[in-house]
Amino acid sequence: MNGAESLVRSLAAGGVETCFANPGTSEIHLVAALDRLPEIRCLLGLFEGVVTGAADGYARMAEKPACTLLHLGPGLANGLANLHNARRAHVPIVNLVGQHATSHLPLDTPLTSDIEAIARPHSKWLRTSAGAAGLGADAVEAIVAARTAPGQIATLIVPADVAWGEGGTVAALPILSRPPLSSTATVERAAAMLRSGLPTAILIGGNGLYGNGLATAGRIAAATGAKLLAPYPITRLQRGVGIPRVDRVQYVLEQGIEQFKEFRQLILVGTRASVAYFAYPEKNSAFTSPGCEIHRLAIPGEDYVGALEALAEALSAPGDAPAAEIAERPPMPSGEITLPGIAAAVGALLPENLIVVDESMTSGRGLMAATKGAPPHDWLGNTGGSIGIALPLAVGASVACPDRKVLCLTADGSGMYTLQALWTMAREGLNVTTVVFANRDYAVLKREFSYLGIGSPGPRALDMFEIGRPDLDWVQLAKGMGVPGIRVSSLEAFGKALRAGLEGEGPTLIEVPL
Amino acid sequence: MNGAESLVRSLAAGGVETCFANPGTSEIHLVAALDRLPEIRCLLGLFEGVVTGAADGYARMAEKPACTLLHLGPGLANGLANLHNARRAHVPIVNLVGQHATSHLPLDTPLTSDIEAIARPHSKWLRTSAGAAGLGADAVEAIVAARTAPGQIATLIVPADVAWGEGGTVAALPILSRPPLSSTATVERAAAMLRSGLPTAILIGGNGLYGNGLATAGRIAAATGAKLLAPYPITRLQRGVGIPRVDRVQYVLEQGIEQFKEFRQLILVGTRASVAYFAYPEKNSAFTSPGCEIHRLAIPGEDYVGALEALAEALSAPGDAPAAEIAERPPMPSGEITLPGIAAAVGALLPENLIVVDESMTSGRGLMAATKGAPPHDWLGNTGGSIGIALPLAVGASVACPDRKVLCLTADGSGMYTLQALWTMAREGLNVTTVVFANRDYAVLKREFSYLGIGSPGPRALDMFEIGRPDLDWVQLAKGMGVPGIRVSSLEAFGKALRAGLEGEGPTLIEVPL
Repeated sequence: MNGAESLVRSLAAGGVETCFANPGTSEIHLVAALDRLPEIRCLLGLFEGVVTGAADGYARMAEKPACTLLHLGPGLANGLANLHNARRAHVPIVNLVGQHATSHLPLDTPLTSDIEAIARPHSKWLRTSAGAAGLGADAVEAIVAARTAPGQIATLIVPADVAWGEGGTVAALPILSRPPLSSTATVERAAAMLRSGLPTAILIGGNGLYGNGLATAGRIAAATGAKLLAPYPITRLQRGVGIPRVDRVQYVLEQGIEQFKEFRQLILVGTRASVAYFAYPEKNSAFTSPGCEIHRLAIPGEDYVGALEALAEALSAPGDAPAAEIAERPPMPSGEITLPGIAAAVGALLPENLIVVDESMTSGRGLMAATKGAPPHDWLGNTGGSIGIALPLAVGASVACPDRKVLCLTADGSGMYTLQALWTMAREGLNVTTVVFANRDYAVLKREFSYLGIGSPGPRALDMFEIGRPDLDWVQLAKGMGVPGIRVSSLEAFGKALRAGLEGEGPTLIEVPL
Repeated sequence: MNGAESLVRSLAAGGVETCFANPGTSEIHLVAALDRLPEIRCLLGLFEGVVTGAADGYARMAEKPACTLLHLGPGLANGLANLHNARRAHVPIVNLVGQHATSHLPLDTPLTSDIEAIARPHSKWLRTSAGAAGLGADAVEAIVAARTAPGQIATLIVPADVAWGEGGTVAALPILSRPPLSSTATVERAAAMLRSGLPTAILIGGNGLYGNGLATAGRIAAATGAKLLAPYPITRLQRGVGIPRVDRVQYVLEQGIEQFKEFRQLILVGTRASVAYFAYPEKNSAFTSPGCEIHRLAIPGEDYVGALEALAEALSAPGDAPAAEIAERPPMPSGEITLPGIAAAVGALLPENLIVVDESMTSGRGLMAATKGAPPHDWLGNTGGSIGIALPLAVGASVACPDRKVLCLTADGSGMYTLQALWTMAREGLNVTTVVFANRDYAVLKREFSYLGIGSPGPRALDMFEIGRPDLDWVQLAKGMGVPGIRVSSLEAFGKALRAGLEGEGPTLIEVPL
């Protein structure tokens, strides 16, 4: 068998079931091999930022990596911004990137570039395969690297002659080792902090925010009065009725400082202490008070769930979790479109088991408060600050969970970076309802300009911040890619469209003019 | 004055008149400085591939660099694919990329990345500014680097505290040195080859394909019978009635070998000998015959126009250029849409001084033959093989030449990578007529699959090659971004829409279903 076939068979044997792809000529043999292998579902994205963002969303929900298939250096480059987001969140992805045949590289043809150099800043594991005989084993090593805690990006570069060369062998995935547990002393120190009675927050990342991890954290909170926090860049947060309550850290510096003011102690599980995204002249970036003691219970790469379980045991925390959210939905709002009204409508209608993808930027600030008492659901956010992740993330989450509905909340500015994802939703008939908050602004930049105390933006600066003139028509954009859309002008119409989207099959889009 | 102000004033003093931008919070002080400086026109792109591709198109036509303004590592990453195309073509661009404040970097916040590592593979000159006092001088060095022959990409990374810090100084551009001339022996060798009477081609790149360079090449061709060739990846080619005839090198390996078969000698001016874009099993990539003598008259970085002038002088080539194209237009076609019909319509209607941007892929093969006898015009192509350049390139070319019309020929597959450029055309009222060849395929990949002799693609491979299901509706997509569009179903309708677009003001789009 040729290298390409050994590669895709090894991926399938290693549990990779999904390939998000935008291939080119140098990847044709890989496409041919995938063509013969029904075990891996291939989904086309019309832009590589869709491909990588979808792989991210898939892995967050499936808890295992998809692979991507990208065309040479430029195809990889187009996918880097969403790989940045995945890298920051420790989401596992296996990138397959084609390369020219080894003999062709010295000719320095137009599509030649240093793919390793392009991949390196975003890849924890990186290899150019040396030959067909080793390609299957390379694929397995890439999977192992991607699945190594806390989750990593692995990039395997496949020269065309390695793909078409004979002598390929299918390799098997070894048993993956569990991530290391925090030391007893580390757990004991956290337990002592919680026993002290001092106001304490537990800031949790990764798989500590859903399933067993979150349930255990809830028991600890119930037993000690500690508050559970999630970082502002949320990878995946389970929430809603009966789920332990977790507050999201604020985005704005002053609000973050206010939020942390009460805490004398902060315990970190798989994340860092919260700081502002950006620096401001003469301001400190930290959210925690100067006197707050910070303790790392589990660092990235360690076993977060195991650490929480050890801590619960050290505290003899009982099995129930009375700090859970209670059922509480806002009444269905009516009248003119307002941001609180939109948030209330989402809270009123949110169905059980929904996956919410949230990149609503400045327009979405009220959404989490309005939905905390809704039926249980998952919340996925932008993890690296590179905007343009929501639509691709929704694609991937929906592919990973075909039996669940996805609500994708995006802004007009962020949505434009990767709007091609709508086409993949249409082709695959994905159950994604997209809401576009259309404020015709990069509103966060306007706010930041004022915040910096450098006066009001003049017309030339406003040209950089305002994305109206002309207004984007998201209904037309969606229809142009096969997704039915509607623009709403009242909260009643929004509620009706949202209900129809969440109850129907296939993708829809709702533009909310603000 | 602060660093940001010294930076933009130094850019303006150094001849930078245009900034294609997609800024973020870390670039706010740069936006504020640009806000106060009317000498630099700022144009917003809603995706960074638009920004870098527009800077490329601008520089090809203005013969000097624009600057870009990009947001941190992810913003730069989104612009890399079109920087790849510009790099391959030696087009000068000055990238300004924001960075976190120096004190903020160790906090490793979500948007932190190794920007230098991301920029390096695509930047000939690269610097992170060390302080406000040196930022003006850094800007000037970036301009000098970008303008150093043959044209380079210079990336200046500006930490936020360097931008907002006081002590900035405006720096002045030094007199730029001319690129070195080819040696007399090198020129004499080329002259001797041409005097030999052996069949000879002169393959020309860079500024040898328009203006003085091309006129001089035409004199050489007229005096010696040599044929003038342009590489398949065309940066800028002047052509049409009265312009020396230049044949474009073929894309397909066999056709290229056929094209070069007659030549016993090949003289290179600022380019390499032609080879296939991709390698194929058991095939040689070179287009030239094994016995063809290849001579480099001028290598990248040398003075191409000077070398051609020296060669013309050595040959005592007379001043006229009888090898010029003669006026010859196809008759206006009618009936059903066919590719030859579309090409004929473009040839029949092409107005003088038009700028043609061509990324029509497999659909556009007949266009150059049908337009060679049209009034004089410029032809810009994809230079690095990374598709998704046409719409941004058209934006930049139109901004550089506001008195000229632009015809942008793109395919549906390539157009989707950077469709956001349509919005910038609408906002700026650019005189760009875009024709989308909608064949619902990555047709080149289908062809390559068959070409490799690995059978016919099955349904799963076709899913990767066919971009219909659902069909893209380019009229809706264009309208969604403020560009009026029309779908045509006959050559008469195409001709009418094309004439209206080229004679009217502002952008339009014509979808040609194939």
